[in-house]
Amino acid sequence: MGGMRLPKAVTNLMEQLEKLPGIGPKTAQRLVFYLLHNPQSELDAYAKAFSQLKQGTVICSRCRNVGEAEPCAICTDKSRDQTIICVVEQPLDVLALERSGGYHGLYHVLHGAIAPLNNIGPDQLFIQELLPRLAGGTITEIILATNPTMEGEATAMYIAKLVEENQIKGIRLTRIGRGLPVGGDLEYADEVTLAKALEGRREL
Amino acid sequence: MGGMRLPKAVTNLMEQLEKLPGIGPKTAQRLVFYLLHNPQSELDAYAKAFSQLKQGTVICSRCRNVGEAEPCAICTDKSRDQTIICVVEQPLDVLALERSGGYHGLYHVLHGAIAPLNNIGPDQLFIQELLPRLAGGTITEIILATNPTMEGEATAMYIAKLVEENQIKGIRLTRIGRGLPVGGDLEYADEVTLAKALEGRREL
Repeated sequence: MGGMRLPKAVTNLMEQLEKLPGIGPKTAQRLVFYLLHNPQSELDAYAKAFSQLKQGTVICSRCRNVGEAEPCAICTDKSRDQTIICVVEQPLDVLALERSGGYHGLYHVLHGAIAPLNNIGPDQLFIQELLPRLAGGTITEIILATNPTMEGEATAMYIAKLVEENQIKGIRLTRIGRGLPVGGDLEYADEVTLAKALEGRREL
Repeated sequence: MGGMRLPKAVTNLMEQLEKLPGIGPKTAQRLVFYLLHNPQSELDAYAKAFSQLKQGTVICSRCRNVGEAEPCAICTDKSRDQTIICVVEQPLDVLALERSGGYHGLYHVLHGAIAPLNNIGPDQLFIQELLPRLAGGTITEIILATNPTMEGEATAMYIAKLVEENQIKGIRLTRIGRGLPVGGDLEYADEVTLAKALEGRREL
């Protein structure tokens, strides 16, 4: 016993990787022993990517999206509809909506959703930062496009209530449509989705 | 469309993380956006852990275990039995055996097992490196302690054949015992384990 001790550098990287969400001790061990077989140049590439992650990366002071300029390319694009704000949980949601080509307004990125079980309350998100954007009177609609999950619904309701309490008038609050995913199969849809799809039916 | 582009630093770290085994594009994205909320000091800690992984980490030229000295602490420990070599797949297996307190001989770490489906053949492992260690005539037993998996069994058989072909005499080749895990339940054991447990039965 005790003859073997893992090198400090090895346990050190294991401990760092274990801090990442979804990576436990076993996965961390597996990754570190995989990395030990990488050349130093590759390890340096990882190191550089980590340390430079925030270089040239800006959280836009208006919409809180991740971008390369302040304000971001979307906020400064005058060709976009300046009267609608689409509220999403994550920068990746902006990417998905942009890819869809179906939206040309502004965004507001919360960087998460209210999740009491994970100790994420409204103050941990960019929710209050939404209010000053509504003050000018330019905004006529807010699309609440948080995820159709418990947390996403709770967050959408919280924001709706906040806008109401602050007596901001003349703004339509809408929730992104829920229903059957395109290409989906009615037969395999869960009950909640089906109920929402019926609720959200539209005239042909 | 196209209004949003992820910063280069962000996509760069995503691409690096995607190279890791078991980490796909979605996980990489999730990790990067998690890391964006970390302070720079923490990102630097990750960077340092990656770039310094091999500093002070040595693959022992005798047993190929990961250690802090050359030769490693186990190979230079004269109180250990110098006549037995236990062949394992990974450095973590050495750690597990040391913790068990049931073994006091030497080790040989292959750094993997033969897995043709993953393009891992004998030449990608430290198998040939075992032969010179057997030449002196000191070794009287080799315990093949590769995992009780298809790959581990194939690797054990390959090594057994190699020792035979090289006409190395006077060495007992043994395979680590397979059977019911301690604390396990006969009722829930799979058939192969049960068959191996019967095969490996011993006198009381």
